[in-house]
Amino acid sequence: MITTIGVNSRAGCEFIDITAEIKKIIAEANIHSGVCHMYVPHTTAGVTINEGADPDVRRDIIAALDRVFPVDGDYRHAEGNSDAHIKATLTGSSAVVFVEDGKPVLGTWQAIYFCEYDGPRKRKLMVRIVQDR
Amino acid sequence: MITTIGVNSRAGCEFIDITAEIKKIIAEANIHSGVCHMYVPHTTAGVTINEGADPDVRRDIIAALDRVFPVDGDYRHAEGNSDAHIKATLTGSSAVVFVEDGKPVLGTWQAIYFCEYDGPRKRKLMVRIVQDR
Amino acid sequence: MITTIGVNSRAGCEFIDITAEIKKIIAEANIHSGVCHMYVPHTTAGVTINEGADPDVRRDIIAALDRVFPVDGDYRHAEGNSDAHIKATLTGSSAVVFVEDGKPVLGTWQAIYFCEYDGPRKRKLMVRIVQDR
Repeated sequence: MITTIGVNSRAGCEFIDITAEIKKIIAEANIHSGVCHMYVPHTTAGVTINEGADPDVRRDIIAALDRVFPVDGDYRHAEGNSDAHIKATLTGSSAVVFVEDGKPVLGTWQAIYFCEYDGPRKRKLMVRIVQDR
Repeated sequence: MITTIGVNSRAGCEFIDITAEIKKIIAEANIHSGVCHMYVPHTTAGVTINEGADPDVRRDIIAALDRVFPVDGDYRHAEGNSDAHIKATLTGSSAVVFVEDGKPVLGTWQAIYFCEYDGPRKRKLMVRIVQDR
Repeated sequence: MITTIGVNSRAGCEFIDITAEIKKIIAEANIHSGVCHMYVPHTTAGVTINEGADPDVRRDIIAALDRVFPVDGDYRHAEGNSDAHIKATLTGSSAVVFVEDGKPVLGTWQAIYFCEYDGPRKRKLMVRIVQDR
């Protein structure tokens, strides 16, 4: 079963913490242990796992990617969002977390982020859990 | 079961659309729903999911990676393809798509690309589908 | 079942070859075929698959990432390791290899690396194998 969550971004580039939503989906799936796959069906967004404590970490990742792959680069794609496509490929369109006792197995400092690179937009993220035998 | 497809690249850096091949493998696997894993057994190539409509998107991703990680950088690896190894790690050696009704669940603009970073070469991509219980 | 391996890094940035450990875990799992997931529960480290033959490849990847995302950049995160968080997101917190005949299906030149970006530290990598039906 695929569960889809909606994500509304409010900025051009923004990492949105979706850890609580993923925890809820895993809890409601009633699966003891397995692998939880998260998938972004967009081409200018991604999903990553990184620090959840200090918001400056997210800010620094976004700023560094902007510096190296600026919005106004030497691009041919006419829509003006080539930087977002580049960042999407570098971040990746999917991520996994392991599930144990009906909960995601995250490290102490880890949070799950939907990575918006061409917002603000209404976005989706799809989740499927592969259960252990 | 692992299904292997051959990919023949014709340029040094090239994103090759393999969406049709992946669709065919999924259809022939006769699996209703699950997770389709794609794996690149090379160290100077990768796999990514990005826009399929405008070829300039692919061109812009490749050009941006070339600008930031140039072929002629300050490298020690004697084979002269360190940039390709770097791009391979940043792209990733695997990707997933969900399977539903015997088809990949892709977003409207998504296509699956084999990313050649040190071509032209004869390459392989391996596919395994984990079926839902 | 999740199997956890310990990784002790000895440098600030270091790719540590964990191929032998992963092979051992797969062999001991007594699973004929499936997908082996590797997961890093840290926010300044990652996991990648790249060339195992020439150590200069690892050196060149690390040096290129350091050049583009330097330790002393224009960052706000007070801990001084923003570059490591950036590299972690670009590398990814997970990787997969297929399993066949109780062994990982790796390409000729492929090795599996734990990517330390903020060492030296005692680290962990978690492994779960999803068995084919």
